[in-house]
Amino acid sequence: MTSRPLDQVLAAVDSGLDQSVERLFALLRIPSISTDSAFAGNCAAAADWLVQDLNSLGFVASARATGGHPAVVAKSPGGAGPHALFYGHYDVQPVDPLDLWETPPFEPRIATAPDGSKRIVARGASDDKGQVMTFVEACRAWKAVTGTLPVGVTMLIEGEEECGSKHLFDFVRANKADLAADVALVCDTGMWDRQTPAITTSLRGIVSEEFKVVAANRDLHSGVYGGAAANPIHMLSKVIASIHGADGRIAIPGFYDGVEDLPADILADWKGLGLTADDFLGPIGLKQPIGERDRLLIEMISSRPTCDINGIWGGYTGEGSKTVIPSEAWAKVTMRLVGKQDPVKVRDAFRAHVRARLPADCRAEFFGTRGSPALALPWDMPVLGKARAALTAEWGRKAVTIGSGGSIPIVGAFKDDLGLDSLLVGFGLEDDRVHSPNEKYDLASFHKGIRSWARILDALAA
Amino acid sequence: MTSRPLDQVLAAVDSGLDQSVERLFALLRIPSISTDSAFAGNCAAAADWLVQDLNSLGFVASARATGGHPAVVAKSPGGAGPHALFYGHYDVQPVDPLDLWETPPFEPRIATAPDGSKRIVARGASDDKGQVMTFVEACRAWKAVTGTLPVGVTMLIEGEEECGSKHLFDFVRANKADLAADVALVCDTGMWDRQTPAITTSLRGIVSEEFKVVAANRDLHSGVYGGAAANPIHMLSKVIASIHGADGRIAIPGFYDGVEDLPADILADWKGLGLTADDFLGPIGLKQPIGERDRLLIEMISSRPTCDINGIWGGYTGEGSKTVIPSEAWAKVTMRLVGKQDPVKVRDAFRAHVRARLPADCRAEFFGTRGSPALALPWDMPVLGKARAALTAEWGRKAVTIGSGGSIPIVGAFKDDLGLDSLLVGFGLEDDRVHSPNEKYDLASFHKGIRSWARILDALAA
Repeated sequence: MTSRPLDQVLAAVDSGLDQSVERLFALLRIPSISTDSAFAGNCAAAADWLVQDLNSLGFVASARATGGHPAVVAKSPGGAGPHALFYGHYDVQPVDPLDLWETPPFEPRIATAPDGSKRIVARGASDDKGQVMTFVEACRAWKAVTGTLPVGVTMLIEGEEECGSKHLFDFVRANKADLAADVALVCDTGMWDRQTPAITTSLRGIVSEEFKVVAANRDLHSGVYGGAAANPIHMLSKVIASIHGADGRIAIPGFYDGVEDLPADILADWKGLGLTADDFLGPIGLKQPIGERDRLLIEMISSRPTCDINGIWGGYTGEGSKTVIPSEAWAKVTMRLVGKQDPVKVRDAFRAHVRARLPADCRAEFFGTRGSPALALPWDMPVLGKARAALTAEWGRKAVTIGSGGSIPIVGAFKDDLGLDSLLVGFGLEDDRVHSPNEKYDLASFHKGIRSWARILDALAA
Repeated sequence: MTSRPLDQVLAAVDSGLDQSVERLFALLRIPSISTDSAFAGNCAAAADWLVQDLNSLGFVASARATGGHPAVVAKSPGGAGPHALFYGHYDVQPVDPLDLWETPPFEPRIATAPDGSKRIVARGASDDKGQVMTFVEACRAWKAVTGTLPVGVTMLIEGEEECGSKHLFDFVRANKADLAADVALVCDTGMWDRQTPAITTSLRGIVSEEFKVVAANRDLHSGVYGGAAANPIHMLSKVIASIHGADGRIAIPGFYDGVEDLPADILADWKGLGLTADDFLGPIGLKQPIGERDRLLIEMISSRPTCDINGIWGGYTGEGSKTVIPSEAWAKVTMRLVGKQDPVKVRDAFRAHVRARLPADCRAEFFGTRGSPALALPWDMPVLGKARAALTAEWGRKAVTIGSGGSIPIVGAFKDDLGLDSLLVGFGLEDDRVHSPNEKYDLASFHKGIRSWARILDALAA
């Protein structure tokens, strides 16, 4: 019954691909960097662009105030199947270091890879505008061919994912009725590899901190005070150096509370995937994994917690030399959580660890954002099998279930506040340079991603 | 014979003080930041200002090309005494962090301290424009009263002291005849305290390095690579944390080669000065000296070598959070040298220490500038006693001979290339905020500094 319209829909996706790319380009041209308040107007513009586009294809869409950047909510009634809440985000990461981009980050283009394949290059091409548009374009094709969608769909496309979804949690709680659904669909994850589609069934949580170490009450001349006055860059370095032991373990007392080992069968599955350091680190120019010595590489990147300094600064960083001992030194840190690690306890443990390493006449100050715990989705989720079959049909290779090293904080709120399990399907690839210069999204990810969602929408209604 | 003109000269200094301050303000208004190429035009303007001023008071002055910022050379013949080569610098340090300045750094003003004393506030007020102008104004007073100077004077006022005097070494070698003299006078050091004048008889040397630690070949997303990929900020932190041992000693192998203990009598003198941590660190909000545990505080800051990180940066340092593992992390370091430490050997030892702490798939790159060894001036220098007597007469307190923690690289070249010993006399104070926001120079330093040079010029001719 469903195969005839689906075939027409897939044909419409294929014949309309050029226009789909055009629309994605229009969205990619908007520099919607959410972490930098200078770009607030651009975030609003990206939300407005989505509202207009979704209204044009028959959704009832609006940009909703959140206290931060607006969230786009769009609705379309559908058939008798489950109602789906689709989630994605229109905000993107900052673009620095800008001089490493081969072309301007907000001037999207199609580039040809050495193997002849095509890729869309722009900030947000993969994370997450390209992924969001795979779903939008799938809906467009269904609407164009059948006038409706196989299942009812509510879209929630936020603008603060890259800064911890800080206002979306309240928004979800305040709009439970409006966002009510039977299942959540999330498109912000990746494939296992170029040929193998994946459904992500676990996500790491995250705790973010910005902190500074303060020594003297002003910057000092190292010719006068050098050798006697505490240098906050040295103290901050000692703190950071103390985070990891020589065995690769995080040495913060209490950090591993709530971390569990994988079930033996999952561990065996993961061993079977045969991920090697050469495969994973070779393309980025590294050889040696730096995680816990007694763990598989795939555990390090998906089922083990991390603590990474993402930025550091202090003293004179301009041209030439300045013989200063600064008053302060700063760092930004993110910790990825797994299992039952409690974000609040982890944050407190981190702060205590830092403070314990400072001399009495120096101090640390912390500026943390809300954290989120890790999430594990139920293996017996009803839609999992349907989605897996649809993906397998599209890609000609069995879809695998994997854990993700990344964090999508709002997925926990979907469970807690809306009672929804989330189906995490995405088409990103490891070499997408997400958060880096020259971010890209394979044209095949985009094209087959649209086709995949067209199939999943069909499968959900079955 | 000499007392009558000197008294008139000192009276002229007193009556002309307001105009002397006006002239200093004019020089302070020129933002001659030498380490930032954006200010090259301002450095040239400062040199031109000095040339014009010195010509106006009867010197034959010109701005001379050096390959970098120009050096001012000015000459005035004098009496039968020794010919003096006066050295100072018109360039200043960068002004960041700008938001900590109470008033704009290049708009000089007279402020009143809580104790009612007056101070000149501006970048360069103390280091070194204010100090240079003490000598210029002393010459002006002598010229005004007597039409000449007690001794012949050549001035060499350079524009690259804050970036290691990088072109001045060649300039001195290329202009030996032009700079020939019997003694060098240098005004870039400080008093012992507000009441006690000082002659500096030893200077620490310096080695500067900028270096980066490189891990992956691009910035990475910590959600994808976190836990597996080497983080250069962590590695740089481990390197920095390894520089100092728990005993406060620098743990770089070979670093202390050539460092000698003080002669017992000098150590006894220094002990007698009774410098305490409360005195020295209290005003900057610190309590505990961080140098070698078994050394006096005064040794730490003047006769022991140091290794200080002056700047650090890497990863995302903008607003908000970015879950990046950067490809590189950077630091700037200066090492202060004493005794017979060899700058080249110290630099090589530092580089080896850094490299030994990096894993095989990461690397460090270094961008060092020329270093200079430490300098000890002869205690039996003929002009030392004369200058000491002149200073003692002006301040009513016996002038002390001290070691300086700072470095004036060119003083070594004066000895090696021109055969000159240097008399280091200055009127800076510990709370001058040199290299920091709200740099100041006490009006008393400026006024009595001019009077001191007027007396020293007189004493040299005796």
